[in-house]
Amino acid sequence: MGVGHSSLPSSVDSLCINVFKPHPKTSALYNPTPQKHLFPTKKHSLFAGLKIGSFNHGRVPGEMEIQKGIAAAQKPIVDFHGIDEGLIQKIVYDALVWSSLHGLVVGDRNVQRSGKLPGLGMVHAPIALLPTPFPESHWKQACELAPIFNELVDRVSLDGKFLQDSLARTKTADAFTSRLLDIHSKMLEMSKKEEIRLGLHRSDYMLDEKTKLLLQIELNTISSSFAGLGCLVTDLHRTLLDDYGEELGLDSKMIPGNTARLQFAEALAKAWAEYNNPRWAVVMVVVQTEERNIFDPDLTWHCIPYLGFTYNVRSIRKTLAEIDSEGQLLPDGTLAVGGQAVAVIYFRAGYTPADYPSESEWSARLLMEQSSAIKCPSISYHLAGTKKIQQELAKPNVLERFLDNKDDIAKLRKCFAGLWSLVDLDIIKEAIEKPELFVMKPQREGGGNNIYGGDVKETLLRLQKEGSGEDGAYILMQRIFPAASLTYLIRDGICHKDHAISELGVYGAYLRNKENVIMNDQCGYLMRTKVSSSNEGGVAAGFAVLDSIYLT
Amino acid sequence: MGVGHSSLPSSVDSLCINVFKPHPKTSALYNPTPQKHLFPTKKHSLFAGLKIGSFNHGRVPGEMEIQKGIAAAQKPIVDFHGIDEGLIQKIVYDALVWSSLHGLVVGDRNVQRSGKLPGLGMVHAPIALLPTPFPESHWKQACELAPIFNELVDRVSLDGKFLQDSLARTKTADAFTSRLLDIHSKMLEMSKKEEIRLGLHRSDYMLDEKTKLLLQIELNTISSSFAGLGCLVTDLHRTLLDDYGEELGLDSKMIPGNTARLQFAEALAKAWAEYNNPRWAVVMVVVQTEERNIFDPDLTWHCIPYLGFTYNVRSIRKTLAEIDSEGQLLPDGTLAVGGQAVAVIYFRAGYTPADYPSESEWSARLLMEQSSAIKCPSISYHLAGTKKIQQELAKPNVLERFLDNKDDIAKLRKCFAGLWSLVDLDIIKEAIEKPELFVMKPQREGGGNNIYGGDVKETLLRLQKEGSGEDGAYILMQRIFPAASLTYLIRDGICHKDHAISELGVYGAYLRNKENVIMNDQCGYLMRTKVSSSNEGGVAAGFAVLDSIYLT
Repeated sequence: MGVGHSSLPSSVDSLCINVFKPHPKTSALYNPTPQKHLFPTKKHSLFAGLKIGSFNHGRVPGEMEIQKGIAAAQKPIVDFHGIDEGLIQKIVYDALVWSSLHGLVVGDRNVQRSGKLPGLGMVHAPIALLPTPFPESHWKQACELAPIFNELVDRVSLDGKFLQDSLARTKTADAFTSRLLDIHSKMLEMSKKEEIRLGLHRSDYMLDEKTKLLLQIELNTISSSFAGLGCLVTDLHRTLLDDYGEELGLDSKMIPGNTARLQFAEALAKAWAEYNNPRWAVVMVVVQTEERNIFDPDLTWHCIPYLGFTYNVRSIRKTLAEIDSEGQLLPDGTLAVGGQAVAVIYFRAGYTPADYPSESEWSARLLMEQSSAIKCPSISYHLAGTKKIQQELAKPNVLERFLDNKDDIAKLRKCFAGLWSLVDLDIIKEAIEKPELFVMKPQREGGGNNIYGGDVKETLLRLQKEGSGEDGAYILMQRIFPAASLTYLIRDGICHKDHAISELGVYGAYLRNKENVIMNDQCGYLMRTKVSSSNEGGVAAGFAVLDSIYLT
Repeated sequence: MGVGHSSLPSSVDSLCINVFKPHPKTSALYNPTPQKHLFPTKKHSLFAGLKIGSFNHGRVPGEMEIQKGIAAAQKPIVDFHGIDEGLIQKIVYDALVWSSLHGLVVGDRNVQRSGKLPGLGMVHAPIALLPTPFPESHWKQACELAPIFNELVDRVSLDGKFLQDSLARTKTADAFTSRLLDIHSKMLEMSKKEEIRLGLHRSDYMLDEKTKLLLQIELNTISSSFAGLGCLVTDLHRTLLDDYGEELGLDSKMIPGNTARLQFAEALAKAWAEYNNPRWAVVMVVVQTEERNIFDPDLTWHCIPYLGFTYNVRSIRKTLAEIDSEGQLLPDGTLAVGGQAVAVIYFRAGYTPADYPSESEWSARLLMEQSSAIKCPSISYHLAGTKKIQQELAKPNVLERFLDNKDDIAKLRKCFAGLWSLVDLDIIKEAIEKPELFVMKPQREGGGNNIYGGDVKETLLRLQKEGSGEDGAYILMQRIFPAASLTYLIRDGICHKDHAISELGVYGAYLRNKENVIMNDQCGYLMRTKVSSSNEGGVAAGFAVLDSIYLT
């Protein structure tokens, strides 16, 4: 499920902090990694005019305040105490110039016409100034998981009964999932087979501080966002460390390479080639309407152009309403939109109820699903990525229904956080007693809907009282407590030093036909970091920035 | 003298149309180049939501209106009649995405904070959608002239008496030139020698339609702008023709390569190396204050970073006021600013009176001139680029004082338009009678001050009546009438088809030490195109866009 692109700059949903339930496997105390890199205080006040300020107060925090803040917070993995402010100013300036020159930009919400067309109302993307330390072992673990999740989604998608049964209670409580299930049912009735299947996924993780476990937050199987901008931040950080690494005591080679956008383009092109007939068919990107599309500089800017440049594959952009009015199903199953045959459909829209304001959009979705075009994702892949399925897969002996390899199953299970449906009375009781250790996740997409802290208790009590079946719309998840580390975050040209927590997303690309798996790869990553002024209760106020990782 | 960066989007000064005086060498009627490229009307309505509109009315012009406009105007060199609007929409979309991803951006005047820092309030640069046809012979001529002008400026700069004498009348009429001359006088008095001399120039031309002559508009010896963005537009147009050339009947190889920004960076780095002692000295870019610096994404973003990336040369940015307060002259002549030795000074500010609001800025300029730092430009180079000197050099037998090579002299003379001082009574009489054939140019810099049409007559009559000596502040120039051709211009995301005229600027880089010329190169080019709704009188309303050339 795609994190809405518009949610990044200020919303918290894209970096949700989940309820923590002590993991049975470990109770070791957190032992921070020894400080590897110390920063010299060499003076480099080369650029004037830059303000290092606070977003909250619009003023420069005093040294005392910073020191106090640091003392009160977790011990950071990399120590930013010693960096000279003049040097930071210079790096910030260079980072902003680099961002402007390399398309690391997003729409500026303060500019009305932003996002109506490319090239208007742009501002640099919110970014971390320097990469965030991340243990190499956990990085490797996350990378290894990508092809296993790819395969799991594919296997689950083939089990229509499992999807329908697992989501039966959700169906009664969530209208959106219900409509998706209706389309899925129709496909089952007509025995529709997806012989060529393309998945472009992103699995999101947080590193739990106390257990030192890499735990999955969610798996996105539709509209996995930021594959483009994430790569650019990696390039930016590598460039900055090439220039300033010596002074900072950091080595650019410790930032893993990130070619997600190229690999996604490759997967789309390979799928297009696999469709094969006719060769002049296009890749169709399903986009949001102009009104809703606040800004989407990511996939459509950073991946799709490669289809043309590198693979000579033509692409078109259509809204769901346009597909409804211009689309038709030819007798051989070909989807034609505006007179053009469509080989591959990439959904950059359609993951949230707001994308379906009328029956017209649902009609378009059904039309596409009935066609022979390769859908990224198919309705089955879309459903396989729901939170409810994530929770079902975490039940004992469920993974075994889909995968044969015991090692793979063990690897998956290791990254599963505690996940429960609201039929588990023991867990509901525990969550009412200790709501701070849980997060309630509604099936609804688009972010910002998770329930934390005291609200968990209130909502559970209300649902118990009402007994309306609405509880089918939620799952309960262990809350994860990642470690906070001191970070420089830049938004709107202002650099702000604060404690922040991070979420790592790893992209995966999967393509297969009737006989063979053509592609099953891990494809780069996305690091997002957000201010956490408190690591204790609720979701901290703050904003998420794009980041990269520095292996430790 | 640099065209103010802020003048591009809407001002007319950067594409001044000069008064025409029939050239004695030719009276041939204009014979348009035969149409080489016809555009097929292949249907490609691939992208939705783009508006092809009119800037003046904010509405889509009807086909009738377009046809009518075309019929009334000059016959275009390349015929845009046949291009399908759907194809244009798709190319526009791609052009906007490409611009956003490659730093072809400027500050958005509608966004208040734009230009305060890099990365804020950006919008795609105003651009022509496709390159503008330009005769290969004239292109080669302009390129050949670059090193000759480089040498001429250097020779003129060495003749302090010529500069002082030529500008004596200007001095009494123009306070800014007077201050520059004062500094120049002081240098003459102290026998200050510039042993290492660096020039980064741009010579601007228009192609006169009736005479088919390439005629010089002006020579910029300080702050020659757009070396960065100009290169990017060339890259954009080549990319678009690589993608759509077949459909358009255009070949990307006919767009000359443009590496001005890399060559300027190379020249700055070579100058830095030539300074040699100490090796840790920096390149200092003199910048405008934050208040005045509406946006300067060009040299400081597109050239200066290469100094670091490619040559490992450190650069700093300082305003004139900062240089005054932080700068000092060491006993050996070294300029130190903020404790750092300066090897090379690049002036991105200081070319206009507005950059000198107090004595502090003049004091900084003097301090720099007294130092051993390599100044780009020195006060002599700066003065050698004034309009008055341009006019003096056009007088008979003046070029011969500075250059030996007769071929070079002939080449320069061929590109000189008619230029006169206001002591030439015959010309003043002619200009009062036929003001539409002349343009009056004040010495004042910063653009927008040229006088056209009826105002020429009025101003000349007033000056004659007053006899105040103010006439020393002006020169008269032949007005040049370039051919208009049908062009697609894009600003603020809107594509507008109109008749437009173009100005070609060719960059030159020159570096020498006491013994040898180290660099004397032509360095890429800048094409600027502006709407000309009428090719007859005055300056047409319109805006200038960045463009490239397509050799015919």
